[in-house]
Amino acid sequence: MKIAILGLGAVGRGLLEVIDEKQLDLVVTGVADSKSAIIDRDGIRIAEVLEAKQRWGSLGDKTLGAMEVVTRAEYDVLVEVTPTNAQTAEPALSYMKSAILLGKHVVTSNKGPIARDFRKLHELAVAHNVQIHYEATVAGAIPIMHTLRHGLAGNEILALYGVLNGTCNYILTRMAAEGLTYDQALLEAREMGYAEADPTYDVKGIDAAIKLVILANTIWKKQVTLDDVDITGIDLLTTDALRLAEDQDCTIRLIAEMVPKKDLLRVSPRIIEKTHPLVVDGSLNAITLETDLAGEVTLIGKGAGSRETASAILGDLLAIRDSYARGH
Amino acid sequence: MKIAILGLGAVGRGLLEVIDEKQLDLVVTGVADSKSAIIDRDGIRIAEVLEAKQRWGSLGDKTLGAMEVVTRAEYDVLVEVTPTNAQTAEPALSYMKSAILLGKHVVTSNKGPIARDFRKLHELAVAHNVQIHYEATVAGAIPIMHTLRHGLAGNEILALYGVLNGTCNYILTRMAAEGLTYDQALLEAREMGYAEADPTYDVKGIDAAIKLVILANTIWKKQVTLDDVDITGIDLLTTDALRLAEDQDCTIRLIAEMVPKKDLLRVSPRIIEKTHPLVVDGSLNAITLETDLAGEVTLIGKGAGSRETASAILGDLLAIRDSYARGH
Repeated sequence: MKIAILGLGAVGRGLLEVIDEKQLDLVVTGVADSKSAIIDRDGIRIAEVLEAKQRWGSLGDKTLGAMEVVTRAEYDVLVEVTPTNAQTAEPALSYMKSAILLGKHVVTSNKGPIARDFRKLHELAVAHNVQIHYEATVAGAIPIMHTLRHGLAGNEILALYGVLNGTCNYILTRMAAEGLTYDQALLEAREMGYAEADPTYDVKGIDAAIKLVILANTIWKKQVTLDDVDITGIDLLTTDALRLAEDQDCTIRLIAEMVPKKDLLRVSPRIIEKTHPLVVDGSLNAITLETDLAGEVTLIGKGAGSRETASAILGDLLAIRDSYARGH
Repeated sequence: MKIAILGLGAVGRGLLEVIDEKQLDLVVTGVADSKSAIIDRDGIRIAEVLEAKQRWGSLGDKTLGAMEVVTRAEYDVLVEVTPTNAQTAEPALSYMKSAILLGKHVVTSNKGPIARDFRKLHELAVAHNVQIHYEATVAGAIPIMHTLRHGLAGNEILALYGVLNGTCNYILTRMAAEGLTYDQALLEAREMGYAEADPTYDVKGIDAAIKLVILANTIWKKQVTLDDVDITGIDLLTTDALRLAEDQDCTIRLIAEMVPKKDLLRVSPRIIEKTHPLVVDGSLNAITLETDLAGEVTLIGKGAGSRETASAILGDLLAIRDSYARGH
């Protein structure tokens, strides 16, 4: 199976490394970073590309860009791993649409297009008889989309509760464990590399809400957007609030909730019993699905990391390859 | 898709109820309990069969048995949910082999044949171009087999740690929480319906070991058996041991472990940090997979129950149906 990769940040590089290491039967015929690209119908030499990227900061041919890879390379699956733009979803959205119109499958880690235009992309993919997979957009290494599609197929999802932002979970864990203030815990999270210089996106609950939108669009049959989510962040939480929760063997976590029957989509700090499976420590992610047959099923894993995201992308690529093997 | 069901205990009845409720596109053309059977090429009337079973304790035609259903009914998939015999795996093993020889797919909740003869059954299925699925044999509603096959495809499983027996987990949870002795907690577990009259199979670790064998045969490429597992039960555990663990923010759980590189297969009570995702309360099950890409992924859910097991069987049936839809 031939793939083309757009984006050579941590995720794109991680994926190339893993494909190289594992000697998977995947031929990479095109790669683009933000400034240049390579197209080679016989398959690029992964080690050389990674070295060039590290040494020179680019791939080589500056006359080529991502759109040239989409339209000119020979591939079966476009792997779109450029940075997320939550407002416009561009330029990723255009790359994906172009690939689908050309009859190519799409695998992505890019939250923008999936949160904003899932329904349209899905319909376009169906119309062109191709698949679109996006396991890597939510909860890193946790195979939540595969679980919804296969493992719990036949179940109705009555509710979903998720710890979807590792930065917030790290801050709350540290506030509860050490009695730190929000500012102290945020500082520590920055020092540990769990929070970005501008943490607004995370601590205000926006990142978790975007992931919730993606989950809701997967489970519900209607298109929801970020505007449909009731969002409260963790930045106003006091140490006192956490202490009060602790007194009752509870703690506070930023929980993304979806309850289809109540039309509820909410991200907010919630008091939760310490023994509940959703209460995970540090930067972990967790998702509890409440189902009609299987009862409550919880999945826990790392929410970020280049190899973890590569795991999610690889799962999607192998799902497409398997469907090929079955004659599709 | 047409299915035939062998076994009308809690699992078989639960499955029939769910198929009836959900109006799934599954036609049941044969059903057998331990004494009788019904075969109807146009599809049995599920509600009537369930009522007859409840009222008369049997299905009707006592001149028919399970083997007649296997050989004479018209079906695509045999659903084998008769009671487990861990020693001989019979009569389930013969039913499954006969169905495979007739070119039928098999879905089962029966641990006996899968633990004892997985490799042979798998090879037989491959030779006859049919599928064999057994999600329901391990950890009830947790979709562990789907996760191994799809969600984490591409990952190498470096180790697996499982809480696979709800009876033991309930007893240990109560010993730790209330300072009960083993005997007191066992009595309580019996009263709550979490332990059978003869709990040997559970508390000696044998049930967990059988499930570990099934997981090992799925992940490893060689056939292992119950004799390969180093087993210690929980029946000799003292309240003191649990108290000592608690003093260090730890607790004790019966953990089934598999570490391929060390050739390790073991079931034993282990001291484990209370914050570890595997530490679940009551009769829940949990499995942590240690992988090369995704890191540690943990799945938590109910380990038993008729609707929970129906969920697992349904997932397998829909996987087969999907592969049909793709032209297989």
